[in-house]
Amino acid sequence: MRLVQFRRRGDGGGVRLGVEQGGEGLGVVDLKAFDPSMPSTMRELLELGDEGLERAQRALSSGRCVVERSDIQLLSPVSAPEKVVCVGMNYRDHCLEQNAPIPKEPIIFSKFPSAITGPYDDIVLPSESQEVDWEVELAFVIGRGGKHIKVEDALAHVAGFTVANDVSARDWQMKRNGKQWLLGKTFDSFCPLGPALVTTDSVKDPHSLGVRCLVNGDTVQSSNTDQMIFQTEALVAWVSKFVTLTPGDVFLTGTPPGVGVFRMPPIFLKKGDVVECQIDQLGSIINKVV
Amino acid sequence: MRLVQFRRRGDGGGVRLGVEQGGEGLGVVDLKAFDPSMPSTMRELLELGDEGLERAQRALSSGRCVVERSDIQLLSPVSAPEKVVCVGMNYRDHCLEQNAPIPKEPIIFSKFPSAITGPYDDIVLPSESQEVDWEVELAFVIGRGGKHIKVEDALAHVAGFTVANDVSARDWQMKRNGKQWLLGKTFDSFCPLGPALVTTDSVKDPHSLGVRCLVNGDTVQSSNTDQMIFQTEALVAWVSKFVTLTPGDVFLTGTPPGVGVFRMPPIFLKKGDVVECQIDQLGSIINKVV
Repeated sequence: MRLVQFRRRGDGGGVRLGVEQGGEGLGVVDLKAFDPSMPSTMRELLELGDEGLERAQRALSSGRCVVERSDIQLLSPVSAPEKVVCVGMNYRDHCLEQNAPIPKEPIIFSKFPSAITGPYDDIVLPSESQEVDWEVELAFVIGRGGKHIKVEDALAHVAGFTVANDVSARDWQMKRNGKQWLLGKTFDSFCPLGPALVTTDSVKDPHSLGVRCLVNGDTVQSSNTDQMIFQTEALVAWVSKFVTLTPGDVFLTGTPPGVGVFRMPPIFLKKGDVVECQIDQLGSIINKVV
Repeated sequence: MRLVQFRRRGDGGGVRLGVEQGGEGLGVVDLKAFDPSMPSTMRELLELGDEGLERAQRALSSGRCVVERSDIQLLSPVSAPEKVVCVGMNYRDHCLEQNAPIPKEPIIFSKFPSAITGPYDDIVLPSESQEVDWEVELAFVIGRGGKHIKVEDALAHVAGFTVANDVSARDWQMKRNGKQWLLGKTFDSFCPLGPALVTTDSVKDPHSLGVRCLVNGDTVQSSNTDQMIFQTEALVAWVSKFVTLTPGDVFLTGTPPGVGVFRMPPIFLKKGDVVECQIDQLGSIINKVV
């Protein structure tokens, strides 16, 4: 299933949950229209566990309550998670690009949930940074919470996968704030997410997906999730040694090579640029820089 | 006012909001018992703005619906905030202790909200760390959200103050995770908070308060918030340049000298230790290490 959060255009209403019919671009089944007892947010749906997904599947199978794409605005598939967990230096080819050693343990940092924005929303260039960069990333979302989750059980805790752009202000990340990455990573709008949460059973192999980033139509990153050093299962197990995971928690799993800061000369985003992040089977997010 | 979140002992019920009568230790007015339309969580109360505080004041003034201290378990005064914003190296005397220069800008890092625990709850020593340390800190909570808040307006965005222990696994903070502090700071239970959210109008001068930490009754930290390099107003203004602040966001403002890691030889917490963090006018939190 491809689960989405959306808003109906023009009705001024709040967040609604839906399931995409068929592939990307077709209509969306409005879950609450099908069953008024369904929750309104992805986090609440995930808290229902398997039952929530089964009810979404029934709604999809009914073929009823379909809203046309043109009538909705897609939002980030998850909003207000308790955590946005990010992983640094997690692609072999990205480490080679910067002559950095392959990490022996995942490097974990975070964004505040306030950074999350929709799959087609604008990236707002802050006046505080002159070095805003792109990072296409495979993201996954926790379905079932837990602590000290074992690697072999980890995938059962993952609700699904989506596409993220880990937008990064390199000046703040690398040179200021005592070299703590948080501030450079967490400006408002620095975490475009979407277009859908593709449930784990609908992704053939999350660690064999082409990953691309295009800026103004030019391919700037092109790799494959098979380059990930720590895969989904390892990341769930690692982070759950430290913290209790909760339904809706979002993980960004690191970026492949091709970011702007390591180019000669470096390239950064400017107003008017359009950044597209694509992952096979998951779809594309397209965000204009304003 | 001294606002609290609590649970009634033995009723198996959820989070309730209260206002302490008189000083610490007296009874607590149960806001929802006084007015069933009141929210159940501090975050929801703060989202009501001035109206929420006025309704709490009316409940307090009524003298009705008082629950005895012995019948309640105090919880952290805020739970599930969108952000736990932390400040490093923010006491002049703490910088001197480690021969570090006085920062010219605040150093901002974070904990996940899952680290928050109650004022008298246990600190759980993780098997993953051998170097768990204490840090008494003045905390404040955002009442009115905003972006690009000016220093002169900042205090109007602060709902009140409370006491925090920024528990820190020094091995993870200083030597591992690519020196990103997050993991060492965010183990479950590493953010005891409380006992009450003391509203801004009830604190005489938040930047002239004695701050102490006692381990097993021995004073290990003793300073004053007048040693803070960046005060509340400056921190609100600074962080809101990067992110939109939201009601309930918690700020931990840094710790004075006397932490275990900079002692000769270093001292770390062990099972059975009792850590008490005290701040004048705000109260004490007492957490056993298990």
